[in-house]
Amino acid sequence: MKNIKVIAFDADDTLWVNEPIFTATQQRFKEIVGKYVSTEILDEKLYGFEIRNLKIFGYGIKGFILSMIETAIELSGGSITGTEVQQIIDLGKVMLDHPVEILPNVEETLQLLQSGYTLMLITKGDLFDQESKIARSGLADYFNQVEILSEKDEATYQRVLKRNNIAPEEFLMVGNSLKSDIVPICNIGARAIYIPFHTTWVHEIVAVDASANLAYQELPDISLLPTYLQK
Amino acid sequence: MKNIKVIAFDADDTLWVNEPIFTATQQRFKEIVGKYVSTEILDEKLYGFEIRNLKIFGYGIKGFILSMIETAIELSGGSITGTEVQQIIDLGKVMLDHPVEILPNVEETLQLLQSGYTLMLITKGDLFDQESKIARSGLADYFNQVEILSEKDEATYQRVLKRNNIAPEEFLMVGNSLKSDIVPICNIGARAIYIPFHTTWVHEIVAVDASANLAYQELPDISLLPTYLQK
Repeated sequence: MKNIKVIAFDADDTLWVNEPIFTATQQRFKEIVGKYVSTEILDEKLYGFEIRNLKIFGYGIKGFILSMIETAIELSGGSITGTEVQQIIDLGKVMLDHPVEILPNVEETLQLLQSGYTLMLITKGDLFDQESKIARSGLADYFNQVEILSEKDEATYQRVLKRNNIAPEEFLMVGNSLKSDIVPICNIGARAIYIPFHTTWVHEIVAVDASANLAYQELPDISLLPTYLQK
Repeated sequence: MKNIKVIAFDADDTLWVNEPIFTATQQRFKEIVGKYVSTEILDEKLYGFEIRNLKIFGYGIKGFILSMIETAIELSGGSITGTEVQQIIDLGKVMLDHPVEILPNVEETLQLLQSGYTLMLITKGDLFDQESKIARSGLADYFNQVEILSEKDEATYQRVLKRNNIAPEEFLMVGNSLKSDIVPICNIGARAIYIPFHTTWVHEIVAVDASANLAYQELPDISLLPTYLQK
């Protein structure tokens, strides 16, 4: 890949485990609320609250906790108890304090790349939560710049590039979400490498045609990145 | 004031009304929970949850909603109903969508200053919520740079100055919180102007001796700032 000077990495499910923590929490949530309602409609109802609340709360665990509570209240017809609501809040607090599990080959890859490139971390979500994860990950020192955004779209990426004086043709984004890390990057004339993760939140899945004609590269593992960059 | 090139403004209760919205919500919260407990201990209990939860949730309305719910659960001995919890969440949603009320003389002052200085907005709190308020305020175009921080202390201010290539002696911070806007700024060798607001959250009040020997200036109104800068 010619002329790349800056490589930016997504964080959740690219550098460290994230979505499985939500999935596991959702399982425990079902155990709390399961007595009120069939668990089959729980996922769908919760997802509905999450999407509606995104516009009000933004991404992140605090909004997810509030969506779980609202789902529980609606599906129990208001008869969920205070004690059960506290159990749901406590599930969220456990998530916020969850150890940061770095994905395989991540640190070795960052080590290899740091001398040849300016490395950035660009993540979306809750500022406080993301800063806490970055600090606890032990990876912060690999990155020359960290950007936490409330949304990852063409406009926000363009602002980041402008603020950091980066030309799109020098910029490579690496991430696991076609919707957030790949499609908007290709659309602003920068390059992207897609490294799929085994679990993707429904909200991050894009229709096939949105990414069909875009010139991004897919790699099965982050460890292949340094060799690919030599091409 | 000699050599000032960059003026940064705090947002909440410096540019627009914030704390009174929390105070009014707390009043409505008391009406919901008042049947379970004497309202005298409610404020104290809620503040206790807020402070403990700051380390987990950070600043902002979502954390405040969760603290109100936890307070209600504890003080009602778990017998708060789902419907009442929903009422508390709805109070929070109203806060998040509250119209942004610009304080008197703010826009006129920004208009006067924008040609002579680089203007910044530096606020702490929830990324999504603060971005939404900045957008809705109609003031965004006055600012060359917006920084939303999870905390305002010496280390975070130093990072902001470094990232934007600003020398401390060129930098002036204007805000209503001695703790967040004045003391750390004076301690890093920059200058600060304190414009008190009629209501201050207990958490933002500093002991008198923490600010006693610091060379900040207090102005009763933001409209006095342009004239003061000529001195």
